[in-house]
Amino acid sequence: MTLETTLAAIRPADAAAMAAAAELQARLTKPAGSLGALEELSVRLCGLAGVCPPPMPQPSAVAIFAGDHGVHGQDVTPWPQEVTVQMVANFLAGGAVINAFAREAGASMLVVDVGVATAVPVAHDLLLEANVRRGTADLSTGPAMSVDEARAAIEVGISVADALVEGGARCLVGGDMGIANTTPAAALIAAFTGAGPAEVTGRGTGIDDNTYARKVDVVTAALAVHQLGQTEGEPGDPIAVLAKVGGLEHAALAGLMLGAAAHRVPVIVDGVIAAAAALVAAALAPDAVAAMIAGHRSVEPGSSVALAHLGLTPLLDLGLRLGEGTGAVLALGVVASSARVLREVATFDAAGVSEK
Amino acid sequence: MTLETTLAAIRPADAAAMAAAAELQARLTKPAGSLGALEELSVRLCGLAGVCPPPMPQPSAVAIFAGDHGVHGQDVTPWPQEVTVQMVANFLAGGAVINAFAREAGASMLVVDVGVATAVPVAHDLLLEANVRRGTADLSTGPAMSVDEARAAIEVGISVADALVEGGARCLVGGDMGIANTTPAAALIAAFTGAGPAEVTGRGTGIDDNTYARKVDVVTAALAVHQLGQTEGEPGDPIAVLAKVGGLEHAALAGLMLGAAAHRVPVIVDGVIAAAAALVAAALAPDAVAAMIAGHRSVEPGSSVALAHLGLTPLLDLGLRLGEGTGAVLALGVVASSARVLREVATFDAAGVSEK
Repeated sequence: MTLETTLAAIRPADAAAMAAAAELQARLTKPAGSLGALEELSVRLCGLAGVCPPPMPQPSAVAIFAGDHGVHGQDVTPWPQEVTVQMVANFLAGGAVINAFAREAGASMLVVDVGVATAVPVAHDLLLEANVRRGTADLSTGPAMSVDEARAAIEVGISVADALVEGGARCLVGGDMGIANTTPAAALIAAFTGAGPAEVTGRGTGIDDNTYARKVDVVTAALAVHQLGQTEGEPGDPIAVLAKVGGLEHAALAGLMLGAAAHRVPVIVDGVIAAAAALVAAALAPDAVAAMIAGHRSVEPGSSVALAHLGLTPLLDLGLRLGEGTGAVLALGVVASSARVLREVATFDAAGVSEK
Repeated sequence: MTLETTLAAIRPADAAAMAAAAELQARLTKPAGSLGALEELSVRLCGLAGVCPPPMPQPSAVAIFAGDHGVHGQDVTPWPQEVTVQMVANFLAGGAVINAFAREAGASMLVVDVGVATAVPVAHDLLLEANVRRGTADLSTGPAMSVDEARAAIEVGISVADALVEGGARCLVGGDMGIANTTPAAALIAAFTGAGPAEVTGRGTGIDDNTYARKVDVVTAALAVHQLGQTEGEPGDPIAVLAKVGGLEHAALAGLMLGAAAHRVPVIVDGVIAAAAALVAAALAPDAVAAMIAGHRSVEPGSSVALAHLGLTPLLDLGLRLGEGTGAVLALGVVASSARVLREVATFDAAGVSEK
């Protein structure tokens, strides 16, 4: 679907289905409220699907979007840019952490080159070549990409959601790979939430104090150059903001989330990259948040700022800061379990269990 | 195995395997430390198994131990005692939350009557009849059971662990069912940690203020009657303490954990009942803690007190307060994923990925 068709298809959560879910939870053979966050999650799944009990969020599919970043030249990370394409090859060979986690969760994998700086040197069934641009420009000195490129990258994400749902997926996970991509994530989060650069900038893969200070300066400079952030008020057109300070994988992840919402299929939000993309998606379609489930709380501070802005509470908090979709995939079992409660657990009446 | 044979088989974690795991984590294709709690968990799995990488903690098996409690007569809960045996029937019919979660996790289920007050009226392949006593006596006025009964219930748990491991299980989950069983759990936790009754007593299935105040009084009275708790210093013989203020399912859960440790198989600790049992097991064999993984942080305050005393950090924190093993089963995927990292993820060298 195009961006416009997708946005037009996104509907608010269904209040009647949510009310039915809350009422059913109270009749199941367990003390009312004793499943905590899983009860709220089950209600949200019903609101998204418009039916109670909700469909099982299975099978699940992980799409990892890879891109490179001109801001890498500002020394915001000690990792060489070539690691992006090398990790794409590692994903395709099955050797990365996301591969191990996806195997455990029974999720399929797709790797999407939406903005890698150099051509991926391997052909593979699980690789989708959809390169919009061979890496962004330096967001701290000018626009990272054009508005047309940002829009094209969003539509890559939408088309991936369309294809995965068409292929049977009923729960999507968006992952990311892109050396330096926590810097555009921080800039996006500052732009969309009004939080300060130091609040949203983290240590990414684990940078030292000097690099961290430089990274905060780069985010601050980017916001100033593009007249974004806390002193500027509302950020304006979301795609324009994305083009100024985002990344191609952030754009595609936003598209994946919009596509999931249009199909009324849940999408698990991973770490800080995905959370930044979720802000873009929510700015374009506020009702898309109904499709988003925060898989985990990343160590990156921008993740918590973005999730709070979206009103999402993360399911897991395991000290992860890897990206790739890893924290989101770990949450798949919790999401599926919450759906199973409404689908499979007996009521007090049906089971012949006395109430208090 | 007998209790003595089991205790004699429990060994400390293997320091060399743990060192090898930490060293391997640093060479895998991800930023060092970026998997947070999963890295520490993978190191503990290696320490338990004595080898790196560790064996996969699969297949997994859930054993739910059911018992009743004489302290029910003190009105510590609004639920009728008959709910224990009714829920046993619900487990066997597949209609409880633990059934739904175990199906999602691919774990087998076994239900053990170790102390239900009335005979379970159904025969079922998944029911093990190992009733030691038809419910305990009121722990607030005298011993809940005899030392011989406590020991017999521990050995029920050990024999279940033996049988499950013999049958191929490589990760165990202990669940509980027993109306009023958070009261003995609170008394055990106060006795073994020295925490005060109000610190370890929670609202269980969701009791009102009057019932809560009565429950704290009952726990306080029990500690006084048996000369246990913060003013008494060391609790003394763990089995004697268990007999005084415990429950038959708490005893069997302690046995399951000791059995798991003897077989060097991980056991996931669920909520406050399992955490109280873990204190008994650790008092009998401090090295058994190496086999324990805290699945989640229960809403019940005693759970956090007990886990802190054991030095265990819970993996999940989802606001659960159901028991049955539910929070532990939700953590199985995280545990398995942490093992997969060491078994399956490529090193920088092997994958041809540049380092920083």
